[in-house]
Amino acid sequence: MTTKSTVKIAKKIEVPTVMKAAVMNKPFDIEIQEISVPQVHDDEVLVKVMAVGVCGSDIHYYEHGKIGRYVVEKPIILGHECAGIVAKVGENVTKVKVGDRVAIEPGITCGRCEYCKEGRYNLCPDVQFLATPPVNGAFVQYIKHREDFLFPIPDELSFEEAALVEPFSVGIHAAKRSNLKPGSTAAIMGMGPVGLTAIAAVKAFGAANIIVTDLENNRLEAAKKLGATHVINVLEQDPNEEILKITNGKGVDVAFETAGNPKALQSALKAVKRGGKMAIVGLPPQDEIGLNVPLIADNELDIFGIFRYSNTYPQGIEFLQGQNIELKSLITDRFMLEETKEAMERARLNKKASLKVMVYPNGMIKE
Amino acid sequence: MTTKSTVKIAKKIEVPTVMKAAVMNKPFDIEIQEISVPQVHDDEVLVKVMAVGVCGSDIHYYEHGKIGRYVVEKPIILGHECAGIVAKVGENVTKVKVGDRVAIEPGITCGRCEYCKEGRYNLCPDVQFLATPPVNGAFVQYIKHREDFLFPIPDELSFEEAALVEPFSVGIHAAKRSNLKPGSTAAIMGMGPVGLTAIAAVKAFGAANIIVTDLENNRLEAAKKLGATHVINVLEQDPNEEILKITNGKGVDVAFETAGNPKALQSALKAVKRGGKMAIVGLPPQDEIGLNVPLIADNELDIFGIFRYSNTYPQGIEFLQGQNIELKSLITDRFMLEETKEAMERARLNKKASLKVMVYPNGMIKE
Amino acid sequence: MTTKSTVKIAKKIEVPTVMKAAVMNKPFDIEIQEISVPQVHDDEVLVKVMAVGVCGSDIHYYEHGKIGRYVVEKPIILGHECAGIVAKVGENVTKVKVGDRVAIEPGITCGRCEYCKEGRYNLCPDVQFLATPPVNGAFVQYIKHREDFLFPIPDELSFEEAALVEPFSVGIHAAKRSNLKPGSTAAIMGMGPVGLTAIAAVKAFGAANIIVTDLENNRLEAAKKLGATHVINVLEQDPNEEILKITNGKGVDVAFETAGNPKALQSALKAVKRGGKMAIVGLPPQDEIGLNVPLIADNELDIFGIFRYSNTYPQGIEFLQGQNIELKSLITDRFMLEETKEAMERARLNKKASLKVMVYPNGMIKE
Amino acid sequence: MTTKSTVKIAKKIEVPTVMKAAVMNKPFDIEIQEISVPQVHDDEVLVKVMAVGVCGSDIHYYEHGKIGRYVVEKPIILGHECAGIVAKVGENVTKVKVGDRVAIEPGITCGRCEYCKEGRYNLCPDVQFLATPPVNGAFVQYIKHREDFLFPIPDELSFEEAALVEPFSVGIHAAKRSNLKPGSTAAIMGMGPVGLTAIAAVKAFGAANIIVTDLENNRLEAAKKLGATHVINVLEQDPNEEILKITNGKGVDVAFETAGNPKALQSALKAVKRGGKMAIVGLPPQDEIGLNVPLIADNELDIFGIFRYSNTYPQGIEFLQGQNIELKSLITDRFMLEETKEAMERARLNKKASLKVMVYPNGMIKE
Repeated sequence: MTTKSTVKIAKKIEVPTVMKAAVMNKPFDIEIQEISVPQVHDDEVLVKVMAVGVCGSDIHYYEHGKIGRYVVEKPIILGHECAGIVAKVGENVTKVKVGDRVAIEPGITCGRCEYCKEGRYNLCPDVQFLATPPVNGAFVQYIKHREDFLFPIPDELSFEEAALVEPFSVGIHAAKRSNLKPGSTAAIMGMGPVGLTAIAAVKAFGAANIIVTDLENNRLEAAKKLGATHVINVLEQDPNEEILKITNGKGVDVAFETAGNPKALQSALKAVKRGGKMAIVGLPPQDEIGLNVPLIADNELDIFGIFRYSNTYPQGIEFLQGQNIELKSLITDRFMLEETKEAMERARLNKKASLKVMVYPNGMIKE
Repeated sequence: MTTKSTVKIAKKIEVPTVMKAAVMNKPFDIEIQEISVPQVHDDEVLVKVMAVGVCGSDIHYYEHGKIGRYVVEKPIILGHECAGIVAKVGENVTKVKVGDRVAIEPGITCGRCEYCKEGRYNLCPDVQFLATPPVNGAFVQYIKHREDFLFPIPDELSFEEAALVEPFSVGIHAAKRSNLKPGSTAAIMGMGPVGLTAIAAVKAFGAANIIVTDLENNRLEAAKKLGATHVINVLEQDPNEEILKITNGKGVDVAFETAGNPKALQSALKAVKRGGKMAIVGLPPQDEIGLNVPLIADNELDIFGIFRYSNTYPQGIEFLQGQNIELKSLITDRFMLEETKEAMERARLNKKASLKVMVYPNGMIKE
Repeated sequence: MTTKSTVKIAKKIEVPTVMKAAVMNKPFDIEIQEISVPQVHDDEVLVKVMAVGVCGSDIHYYEHGKIGRYVVEKPIILGHECAGIVAKVGENVTKVKVGDRVAIEPGITCGRCEYCKEGRYNLCPDVQFLATPPVNGAFVQYIKHREDFLFPIPDELSFEEAALVEPFSVGIHAAKRSNLKPGSTAAIMGMGPVGLTAIAAVKAFGAANIIVTDLENNRLEAAKKLGATHVINVLEQDPNEEILKITNGKGVDVAFETAGNPKALQSALKAVKRGGKMAIVGLPPQDEIGLNVPLIADNELDIFGIFRYSNTYPQGIEFLQGQNIELKSLITDRFMLEETKEAMERARLNKKASLKVMVYPNGMIKE
Repeated sequence: MTTKSTVKIAKKIEVPTVMKAAVMNKPFDIEIQEISVPQVHDDEVLVKVMAVGVCGSDIHYYEHGKIGRYVVEKPIILGHECAGIVAKVGENVTKVKVGDRVAIEPGITCGRCEYCKEGRYNLCPDVQFLATPPVNGAFVQYIKHREDFLFPIPDELSFEEAALVEPFSVGIHAAKRSNLKPGSTAAIMGMGPVGLTAIAAVKAFGAANIIVTDLENNRLEAAKKLGATHVINVLEQDPNEEILKITNGKGVDVAFETAGNPKALQSALKAVKRGGKMAIVGLPPQDEIGLNVPLIADNELDIFGIFRYSNTYPQGIEFLQGQNIELKSLITDRFMLEETKEAMERARLNKKASLKVMVYPNGMIKE
């Protein structure tokens, strides 16, 4: 709660006029360029970027140059899971000050449309989201951002962890939307970074039993460290049989599909108890997936689509301050900004061993 | 609100010891038998059945002898949409008295399981539901029922209308579960009796725009009378194009699929606006239907399975007392108990012209 | 739903450089001045004000020069219930165009604070609310406003009615917050303009029984016209005895206190059934009111404080288009802008006969 | 989740025909009598009572012979916070078996009224609640109870802890009704057993900051052990000043008043942030308490009355199995059934040092 700005960090930050940026010219082509440090408007803040996670969407743009209707049409800077230090503030900024350590919520919304006004700003049609074409992202040394999407972090939280609030937010949002109750039983399908951070999210919401599935044992091991109470390798066991055993034949209260995999989705649906809930978090590659519709009706299930998140950062930061949530173990690979291409390659080729790959645009500071 | 028992009906009802019942021995074989009038327990009530609607499930049992896991293994009496007059009360009955006109909620639930205790008694695993094997139904002259599932109706409501509270309840439950807001725009796919009564339900919930689809013009005409503001014949127009036109490109707040038809379901999903909701009311014949999962996630839709209803009868009766809801027009065909087989045949063969077929076990009283 | 801009109004509006404004120099001193027509920013719209309602808060400022922590420290223009015609649009405005007839939602919120982001923008600490010191209001010929707080109205809605969407919004918000269900029974204490429009609100939410109280028979007569099903003059009858009679001893589902009167509040609390709800809409003059706390706990009541409203305008306009809601009858007195002082005096002195007093800054156009 | 019945307890329990009971003849007069062991009906279970907590309501009956409308008119057995071993089961019992260790939910509800059917069975007007006149309670060796209100407990939970699920349930219900969010800040006024167990409840719901008040330092010490993050002795500090300091001037998300004290209630109301919530858990002795009503409206607060609980036992047992919730430390005094009067006297006279006094009807078994 008391996130006082630290005294250990200098209140005066020297800001250069040019900086390095990792620019993707086209798929598989990332180049380090020198570009101008951006100017801030009255309500904006310049953040010295200290840590940026590589997200699956970054890799998808890197490989394919597009995701759905978002197409990379000119060189773009990727990266949107980020945290840093406030280096400069616009004239009207009151929420943060130079020297503050902050997590950056990457989507800047209009605040004026029907969705924003109803508190579902993640559905804002005019959102400017970092690293979503044509908006540039965070693989740079300095980035400007609107002050209301910056969240001061306490001293005990590292920049790395603060960057992880972004994927963590997806799980928090899914837990919130599915109204996960304390003491309940959750299943999470898929142990990529979103699935893994979702373990922390459902734990923070008080889930008593957390059953997870994946096909890689190293990911299942990571899941256990984060709080999974039961892990199932779907190559070795039938997940639905196992879930029935674990839940005494009843099924789970809420299932979260995070893999974007049709079989995992069908398995999630089947894992839910009568009157239970399912959150669709992962995006499958194909448009149409066969779902057991009579089951949905007969068992009166609720299914919730999940798109990004809203109002999760304060909660996410609060959770990470508690004693029980520990996301650091997710970070398996660390690169300098100059190595952004290597970071992308590591993330896409080493899926067996790498969990979260992190880039450090201003050096590998030891915290 | 003030549902005083009428003075026009005698307070002393002569109850015979034997009565007529329409017994289905096997599919397509319904026979009128004389059976004993049931004895009531302390908490039970004997109701003289005055009107019974023929439901799609009755027809399904009549044609196939089963629905899903419910199999007719011995002769059964069908019919569960019913209303009548209290003819006799058990010793501990306090809620109704002889002579009261009542609607009968057909499912008797345990009141003790997890679902009952949480207010979702429609999911009670031990429910005894009229005309669901092995429980007998209402095509009889007298039926016994637990008092808490009887609801007194006001004088101005006919027995026919009171019987229609049953299908009406499905729409009310769907509107409640999907949290339909007053002033909103709803789409209802499929204008069978459940779809048609759902019009009345969403209207009672304050829907300002009610768009409906079907492939029979007589049903669309009936829909208009019940309050549909826009009707679409899917044989003549593309429903999704039309819905976009009507909603200025936005989509509807809530779509209700009541047809149990895969194409209607896909169309319903596509008709929903970003952040909107869909209720799955109809049961499709096949188990797996291809749904656009990325659309569900991207647009953050909520999907609600609907199984029967709970706590809808008082609301349903209240709605029918208002000036704006008029279900009577749904009743197109009327039969005596002796003609139950004809009623079933009419309902199954005359889908073009018949909406709701009604059976009168104690004569066609003029109200 | 289809609120097409009318063709009857010219698309080119001549805007003068100076205009008339009713400026309150100090309590009881309102003067007509000539002031500059405001310039619009990129996201702002200039509205030619056609109708402005006199609100209780206007009268309070007029009499006392302050409400709670809001103090009139320099001359101010009052009036915030208003509607008009778009006369000029800023460069980036896309939502409305010149000639559009619009209702004006008077509070401009920041869109960036915690409350705005959660959809409760009525709690925004930085709101700029018309006619709340030091922000000027609508007793002027032209007013500028941010485009996202303007709502096009359909041809069939008059400017007067559109101005009434403001007080109507309070009742809508109260009904929404108290989750008023269709078919339920509501009590509304106090038949001032907020109480009267609340009748329309609970009716739009489907309330089947609407019991209202006041001590003026003319207001109770107006209540009946708006849809009250039972009226109680508290000078003649004990409201709680009557409510128990009407509800067969049960109490109401939701009670709305709109009078700001301690006795009415206590009566509202007592009127609520076990497990029911109460909304506190009216602001009493004193800080402490004795409430029956054991009753709140024993009966597990929910009590909701109501402060202004959020996201109500589209719904309010939609409701007024329906056939059943008719607010026009509330307008009892009409004045020109030059007569604003007279309008204030009428509103404050003629409480017996006047319901809503309306001011017309650009002449009494006949619609 | 997996609450397998233990193998350590014999499956055949010898049940005597007579047993000891602590009967209160009139206030301050408790006598140990020999009475018949009750016979169980088909759906009932005989439980060998192993631990019973002394509740404030027991003491109130012991001192005054009544609570509100509940008057002790003939000898009564008190005690309702209890757990034990299933000793005998009725013919139709399927949920538990002889030898099962169970927590007893003390209120048996009808399952058929409007409240039961809506999931708010705590408001059932026909509830039979242990130790509420004229229903006898648990200061006996054997008690019969309906099977659906018995909840098997896992081996690791002691009978003492299982008995504490009763007061714990009140806090769980309050947290549920006030929709306490994980990561939020709660204040709890009053550190009696209900307030203390409420700490565990809000912790289980994920509260990140738990501020508690009392005027006894030993209770505040106990509060710290249970998870309070900030304790305030109201004799030494102004609670509202402190709460503002702790919350950076903002106030708490939810305040729980458990003391039944007018000043604590006013303080709780004032402690809540704008848009926040208050639960009224404690029953004050007087009927009318002055509350700041303009504050409730201006800050749009939600206030929830709390009466007992519903659907909390499974959750409560689940919480106690987790590593973080530890209620055992609350038990300060232990008595045999024969010493029930001493237990009552200890509880009422030693408020400074005693937290929860426990009675053991079948001996002080070491677990």
